[in-house]
Amino acid sequence: MLSGSEMHPARDARPSASDRLRIAVSMGDPNGIGPEILTRCLMDSDLTDRIELIPVGAPQVLEHYLGENGPVLGSGAEAPEFRMEAVDADPDYELVPGRADRRAGKLAMDSVARAIQLCLDGRVDAMTTCPISKEVIARAGFDVPGHTEFIAEKTGAKDVLMMMVSGGLRVGLVSAHVPLKDVPSRITGENVTRTIRLMAESLRMDFGIASPRIAVLGLNPHAGDGGVLGSEEADIIIPTMNRLAGTAVLSGPFPADGFFGSGRWKEVDGVVAMYHDQGLGPFKALSFGRGVNMSAGLPIVRTSPDHGTGFDIAGSGRADASSLKAALLLAAEVAERRRTKAGGAS
Amino acid sequence: MLSGSEMHPARDARPSASDRLRIAVSMGDPNGIGPEILTRCLMDSDLTDRIELIPVGAPQVLEHYLGENGPVLGSGAEAPEFRMEAVDADPDYELVPGRADRRAGKLAMDSVARAIQLCLDGRVDAMTTCPISKEVIARAGFDVPGHTEFIAEKTGAKDVLMMMVSGGLRVGLVSAHVPLKDVPSRITGENVTRTIRLMAESLRMDFGIASPRIAVLGLNPHAGDGGVLGSEEADIIIPTMNRLAGTAVLSGPFPADGFFGSGRWKEVDGVVAMYHDQGLGPFKALSFGRGVNMSAGLPIVRTSPDHGTGFDIAGSGRADASSLKAALLLAAEVAERRRTKAGGAS
Repeated sequence: MLSGSEMHPARDARPSASDRLRIAVSMGDPNGIGPEILTRCLMDSDLTDRIELIPVGAPQVLEHYLGENGPVLGSGAEAPEFRMEAVDADPDYELVPGRADRRAGKLAMDSVARAIQLCLDGRVDAMTTCPISKEVIARAGFDVPGHTEFIAEKTGAKDVLMMMVSGGLRVGLVSAHVPLKDVPSRITGENVTRTIRLMAESLRMDFGIASPRIAVLGLNPHAGDGGVLGSEEADIIIPTMNRLAGTAVLSGPFPADGFFGSGRWKEVDGVVAMYHDQGLGPFKALSFGRGVNMSAGLPIVRTSPDHGTGFDIAGSGRADASSLKAALLLAAEVAERRRTKAGGAS
Repeated sequence: MLSGSEMHPARDARPSASDRLRIAVSMGDPNGIGPEILTRCLMDSDLTDRIELIPVGAPQVLEHYLGENGPVLGSGAEAPEFRMEAVDADPDYELVPGRADRRAGKLAMDSVARAIQLCLDGRVDAMTTCPISKEVIARAGFDVPGHTEFIAEKTGAKDVLMMMVSGGLRVGLVSAHVPLKDVPSRITGENVTRTIRLMAESLRMDFGIASPRIAVLGLNPHAGDGGVLGSEEADIIIPTMNRLAGTAVLSGPFPADGFFGSGRWKEVDGVVAMYHDQGLGPFKALSFGRGVNMSAGLPIVRTSPDHGTGFDIAGSGRADASSLKAALLLAAEVAERRRTKAGGAS
């Protein structure tokens, strides 16, 4: 039994099969779609036969979605059984789906912190995070751009890479949550190096690819078109790639606009994009709501769905759990691979 | 018969049916895949039954691709019949597929200029351009970023918008062929206004949509996420949209990364993106090689395929003509609509 956890519902929980992996799932912003998609996954035997999902958050929020007349469970349907890790909400917090509320932001971040601790203590094999709102957590006093940076800090990771995964399509970003005007200043030899190294290492360790092939995109339209549309390719990206020739099988820099549509991504194991929308726009267009965000370079395994809080549809029962399901399956796959490797090495 | 044109091959050309639209097709960089995809379209009766294609370029280049043992026609197959508009190449120019050659760049741009003149003289209904290399035309002394700007200048257009079209997906860019570092300075009220207005006008005039719905993307990741990741949305884009409420049914600014993958683009008639890769990466991922580039706001109708010169596969017979075919069909559709409108108004 997890310390600080409670049984929910009150009946005996199904005994955890020893071969099921345990994944802590932070509930995300409780006023967003997080609790709903988590509930859907708890009811998905395709998942729970293989993975023990341990929700981390305020029990009353999950109860709302698990209630007989809640937005997910049909009337008369039986609630699933599971253990959960309870996190206290502010006494004034009230569940209002769709409301941007700093108390909800605080609860969301406390849940993430608890899930991290479960991982660090070895009480779960991986963690998956439901969506938070950067605006709401800022109001709650958390001065971090998002989950990835928060988890890196709490786990003492030297470096972390947000990597998006959908089947064989894996995209890593040199810069992520920064205003567009600040992107060019982030395209340094050091940052490009770091991204390529973290991706290569993750492809080896987490995906079992011995000799990873990585394509690098240019920063400018048409990858600078021979210097006519920008010089960062010639000045920074190409020299850095040359220095890293031993790290992975590198190709590029490619013009970003045509790289995905042409299907060239299928010829490599990973793609390094220079900034957020350059990589994630095409990624989301190709992954059709099943993309997963994975934090590469952490001592723990962490994944998340690739969408936001969905405040506009929260509480309506219309949220799609596909991406969370994909995130849980990927976390399990990576945790399994790391466990096997660690076991083999001991 | 077009002035300056010649018959090719020497046999009588098929008489032009009076109801076929005439489209001038500039050959693009003759060392690229332009001549090959043009040849494929000349052999496509699906196109030539409805449209008279008039190639504009150097006859010897097309002859290479139309030759009995050329890379397109099978041995013993019959070459198609057509009229062409001959443009003189530099006497030293030699066709070497894949070679970046300033003489090829000069020939390409002279062909574009001739096609523009045919349009302005009313001798064709529209023009479609095969790809050029910005690097090669720069070497040939053409100080323009690309086709679009060149054609705008030659037709005396006050303003032009590069719009990408694939079925109901239509994407316009506030900034296009500029280095990424210069993008934020282009996101001005004036430029956003101009893009929305040109797109709205084209949706009305060229696509027959009386009350166009236009979605606008943000500049920054997550459309600035309430100001945490950039302020141009609140400072520039939203105030501009408010001022233009009468121009079109506007929505946004939306986070660019999820907009296309979520299918929200299907709810509107056009999408305004802030810069090249933000709009074109997802566009190309969704249009699967059948995207068309259309210049909105010109007095003439002009389209082009959405790919580059393909120097790496030029001459190999492996080029895909799908995008050029789509460009020709769209040019015909728009020219037909403009002609009907002009006819109806006279």
